[in-house]
Amino acid sequence: MSDLKNDRPNTPLLDTVQRPADLKRFSDAELIKIAQEVRSETVSAVSVTGGHLGAGLGVVELTVALHAVFNTPKDKIIWDVGHQCYPHKILTERRDRIRTLRQKDGLSGFTKRSESPYDPFGAAHSSTSISAALGFAVARDLGGNVPEGLGDAIAVIGDGSMSAGMAYEALNNAGHLKKRMIVILNDNEMSIAPPVGAMSSYLSRLYAEEPFQDLKAAAKGAISFLPEPFREGAKRAKDMLKGMTVGGTLFEQLGFSYLGPIDGHDMNQLLPVLRTVKDRATGPILIHVITKKGKGYAPAEEARDKGHGVSKFNVVTGEQKKAPSNAPSYTKVFAEHLLKEAADDDKICAVTAAMPDGTGLNLFAERYPSRCFDVGIAEQHGVTFAAALAAGGMKPFCAMYSTFLQRGYDQVVHDVAIQRLPVRFAIDRAGLVGADGATHAGAFDVAYLTNLPGFVVMAAADEAELAHMVATAAAHDDGPIAFRFPRGEGNGVDMPERGKPLEIGKGRMIRHGKQVALLSFGTRLAEVEKAAEALTAKGITPTIADARFAKPLDRDLILELAATHEALITIEEGAVGGFGSHVAQLLAEEGVFDTGLKYRSMVLPDTFIDHANPADMYADAKLNASDIEAKVLNTLGVATIGEARA
Amino acid sequence: MSDLKNDRPNTPLLDTVQRPADLKRFSDAELIKIAQEVRSETVSAVSVTGGHLGAGLGVVELTVALHAVFNTPKDKIIWDVGHQCYPHKILTERRDRIRTLRQKDGLSGFTKRSESPYDPFGAAHSSTSISAALGFAVARDLGGNVPEGLGDAIAVIGDGSMSAGMAYEALNNAGHLKKRMIVILNDNEMSIAPPVGAMSSYLSRLYAEEPFQDLKAAAKGAISFLPEPFREGAKRAKDMLKGMTVGGTLFEQLGFSYLGPIDGHDMNQLLPVLRTVKDRATGPILIHVITKKGKGYAPAEEARDKGHGVSKFNVVTGEQKKAPSNAPSYTKVFAEHLLKEAADDDKICAVTAAMPDGTGLNLFAERYPSRCFDVGIAEQHGVTFAAALAAGGMKPFCAMYSTFLQRGYDQVVHDVAIQRLPVRFAIDRAGLVGADGATHAGAFDVAYLTNLPGFVVMAAADEAELAHMVATAAAHDDGPIAFRFPRGEGNGVDMPERGKPLEIGKGRMIRHGKQVALLSFGTRLAEVEKAAEALTAKGITPTIADARFAKPLDRDLILELAATHEALITIEEGAVGGFGSHVAQLLAEEGVFDTGLKYRSMVLPDTFIDHANPADMYADAKLNASDIEAKVLNTLGVATIGEARA
Repeated sequence: MSDLKNDRPNTPLLDTVQRPADLKRFSDAELIKIAQEVRSETVSAVSVTGGHLGAGLGVVELTVALHAVFNTPKDKIIWDVGHQCYPHKILTERRDRIRTLRQKDGLSGFTKRSESPYDPFGAAHSSTSISAALGFAVARDLGGNVPEGLGDAIAVIGDGSMSAGMAYEALNNAGHLKKRMIVILNDNEMSIAPPVGAMSSYLSRLYAEEPFQDLKAAAKGAISFLPEPFREGAKRAKDMLKGMTVGGTLFEQLGFSYLGPIDGHDMNQLLPVLRTVKDRATGPILIHVITKKGKGYAPAEEARDKGHGVSKFNVVTGEQKKAPSNAPSYTKVFAEHLLKEAADDDKICAVTAAMPDGTGLNLFAERYPSRCFDVGIAEQHGVTFAAALAAGGMKPFCAMYSTFLQRGYDQVVHDVAIQRLPVRFAIDRAGLVGADGATHAGAFDVAYLTNLPGFVVMAAADEAELAHMVATAAAHDDGPIAFRFPRGEGNGVDMPERGKPLEIGKGRMIRHGKQVALLSFGTRLAEVEKAAEALTAKGITPTIADARFAKPLDRDLILELAATHEALITIEEGAVGGFGSHVAQLLAEEGVFDTGLKYRSMVLPDTFIDHANPADMYADAKLNASDIEAKVLNTLGVATIGEARA
Repeated sequence: MSDLKNDRPNTPLLDTVQRPADLKRFSDAELIKIAQEVRSETVSAVSVTGGHLGAGLGVVELTVALHAVFNTPKDKIIWDVGHQCYPHKILTERRDRIRTLRQKDGLSGFTKRSESPYDPFGAAHSSTSISAALGFAVARDLGGNVPEGLGDAIAVIGDGSMSAGMAYEALNNAGHLKKRMIVILNDNEMSIAPPVGAMSSYLSRLYAEEPFQDLKAAAKGAISFLPEPFREGAKRAKDMLKGMTVGGTLFEQLGFSYLGPIDGHDMNQLLPVLRTVKDRATGPILIHVITKKGKGYAPAEEARDKGHGVSKFNVVTGEQKKAPSNAPSYTKVFAEHLLKEAADDDKICAVTAAMPDGTGLNLFAERYPSRCFDVGIAEQHGVTFAAALAAGGMKPFCAMYSTFLQRGYDQVVHDVAIQRLPVRFAIDRAGLVGADGATHAGAFDVAYLTNLPGFVVMAAADEAELAHMVATAAAHDDGPIAFRFPRGEGNGVDMPERGKPLEIGKGRMIRHGKQVALLSFGTRLAEVEKAAEALTAKGITPTIADARFAKPLDRDLILELAATHEALITIEEGAVGGFGSHVAQLLAEEGVFDTGLKYRSMVLPDTFIDHANPADMYADAKLNASDIEAKVLNTLGVATIGEARA
């Protein structure tokens, strides 16, 4: 991005740091300078790659302090979500690649075990870190063997991530097992969106009642984890710790010692507290650290989302370079058409799990605040809450990313499907997602929803189809219904003013051809059409159909296509077990294979596809037009082009 | 069960109660008598049906009090898990069918929407009730329309269920939304097993510090939900309420008013407290009720599991009639062979989510207490905890029922599969489970695991195979591995002293035949063999193979079977998307269908199969020998028998 003209920052001390062990030789004053250099380097790197900026800037001091005090990789630092790990990567042998963040073959935007021994447990979904830290602590005490050794286990978790039940489950188990382990609650009152829920209010009250500006001497109860008299060196730390009587905080009630709150940008608080904990901890300890997302970079601090996710930008001005948009995003189309339905029907309501912006429901929340529910990072609760809304006569749209809906899978089965309740699932980020990589891919939703009795499962082929599917879901009151759509922009097709309900279980013909029928489910349709053009030039004119529904299947359409073509190929952006598998089951049961049909099912490959731009990922997945073309030629036995594969 | 000679109890007052509204005409003293009659009737009913006994006995008074005070079905009582609902069913127009509990076409052993308007939200999995109650409360306030109307929303949840993150997510959201709703914490210090975790200790401390024997006058803080001065009638209730300062309990920190603890078997406490809450509540309230599981029936009170689940029994003696056992249960085979592996390898450890007895890990916990972890009803945490144990060099076996592993699905994907960590999943209760019905069926695990890159997925055909699969999992250190096995007893086959690791991805031939190949995955193999015998008598000698692995598939075996037979039929006890779908994908990709193959895939049908005995359920599922026989005849085009189907 030469036009951004961002100079590399001057980082004389950091330049001498290859790995965390190098930090040990610096004084506390020098560590403060190093933290500033790490901050500059983080801003500089993200200015050329784009990515998560605010979260990393908020933990610069914490990252330096942790690596200066503890001994990684033997000690395990587990960054919850992992999107705040860029400073950590800079300090852990990856600075030379930090400007490849989120690029193909570059560093992941999250922690990743396969990338570095300093990433003992990868993440990307939230609230796993306490469970992971407890596992490492237990493995250590049981004599587990790993090349780097097993030392302290430290989870760094945001206040937003604390709204997830999984974090509570882990605290509950850790408080019971009483192993030495450290949880650092990074309280910035901001996850992706401002966090919601009673826990968030509770943390705010903790902070309001006893801000770190007024630290008082530690009361006896709060330092009960320190079994011996304080030594001289720990004296300072003692004065930092807020006194709390045993049983005072929710965390203590769950069996943790509680320290804090402390100022997460003040190394003169962080370093002594961490050193004291390292020297003296016996059981589980929670350190409550207050930070500011985006800290130290004005454009991030001033942004509404604190620089959560940014494009490449000019470091001086903060101005981001966004690619020009030719079509509305699928998310926006969903949100706008849901608003149209909601305007006519006051029973329509919406549920999101801490993703009001990502799912477009921020628009709904503005227009209909009483009907929009952000339940926090709590997909399990969110799904069952939506099920009960439906049981109470409402028409809930549960808007979640495909990958996060996995968190509520049992609730989808047990509370929605078995009870046949009309919850509408708007599944965003279905399929490959680009720079967020494998952890965020929506690969499995078609498979795990389509085999649930009574479910209706749709995929939009383009943004106009999405509008119709929103209307279809709104109108469908006989059991659960889901529609999936991908990340990113639509195709720029003409949009209806208002979606019209589709006939359930009916696909549509796109073009009549012969010899081979291409049956698409979802947005790969555009690539199918491109492939068909290329094939036509070669004398093969495929039939194309858009299935629209993976459940119920359009039996008539599918059997007709099978009966009238030499070959039938399904195309979808999902793993085996989904649309194509249900088509195969139908064809098998109907005896279509008995007499021969060149049937193929193009699906996502049996690998986790690493982050890259979407085009590269589709190439990896062999779901581009050229792949479809090759599949047709190969299936028909006329393959001559190089890239044909079985 | 005439040999049990159980007389019907004498229930003169209860005999006049058809529905909850009938309770309104009784005095408090009469309600106490009715509760005793409900208890007797519950014991009597379960003595002839078997089922969950202890949980229901523990809430007899609570059930009568709730129905006497509130107005169901307009007010919604949501019983968490639902296995304590027999007294509720007796009072809600179902007494005439109470002796059909858990029988085919009889009452469900859980709450069920389709069964009664008094069951507003069904359950069977735990910890959904607070989410459901919140949904009903919100629907009420938004004007949701249901035939019975929408009044109060009341969740009744056990202390064991409180260990699940989902319950916390719901409390967190409810405390934030501040809707009027009621959570009754039924604290019996006993779920299926004694509950574990810090929350459980915390509740015990709350109770120990302020037992209800020493109730003191309500302090101002605790009754802040009562905005007006107490009226005369509520005076008594006031004296019942334990005083707690605001912010004192964990529940208050999450935004709930907290009342209690009160004696859940004392109607003179329950009735006035519930009446007061009903009259005065404005926001979310938690009532902490102390009960005894099995209360009032000595054989249950004295049992180790407090009569959690019982067979038919003699009411006088409590003696249960258990069917004689011809073979060890799969659960026991798993547990015993895991112990053998653990004896040789101190890295082997075990994780259960509140099911030490159900999964057989109670044996492991006795022998190797430091290596066995009951994480509570916390599958999300349990899976990720196991993943970190593996990352820390341990060899964790994560033993869960198929249906409950759904709760940890995202963690299986995100923390185990993507990181390729060698967690061993022992999946019990895979397939149909009998009396517990659709909510407990393990129908989806093959589908949702087999499409995860890097997973190994096995199913045991019999108990000897299970022993080998335990050994296979112990030896497999290159990524995740799962093996599934059903509820109930094995086939009585010869058992190896010790399992031997199987070759990954290799099936086995059972018998060589011709014309049709039957490829079985799992315990339906015995039915396949029966079907083959019947077919042989009709002149058709099928080939039989046991796939052992759904992933990786035994390509050579499958393609060989396809090449050498006119028909290939897969049989599995799972939904579409699993083994058969992966076989179909392979056959399609290899072009086997191009020239014709009579391929069929026998799977669980696309319905939720209601509770019944296993034989009836398999008949419903069309997975018995006769169904397999019919499928073969029909596929080969020689069907003449009546029950053949396409």
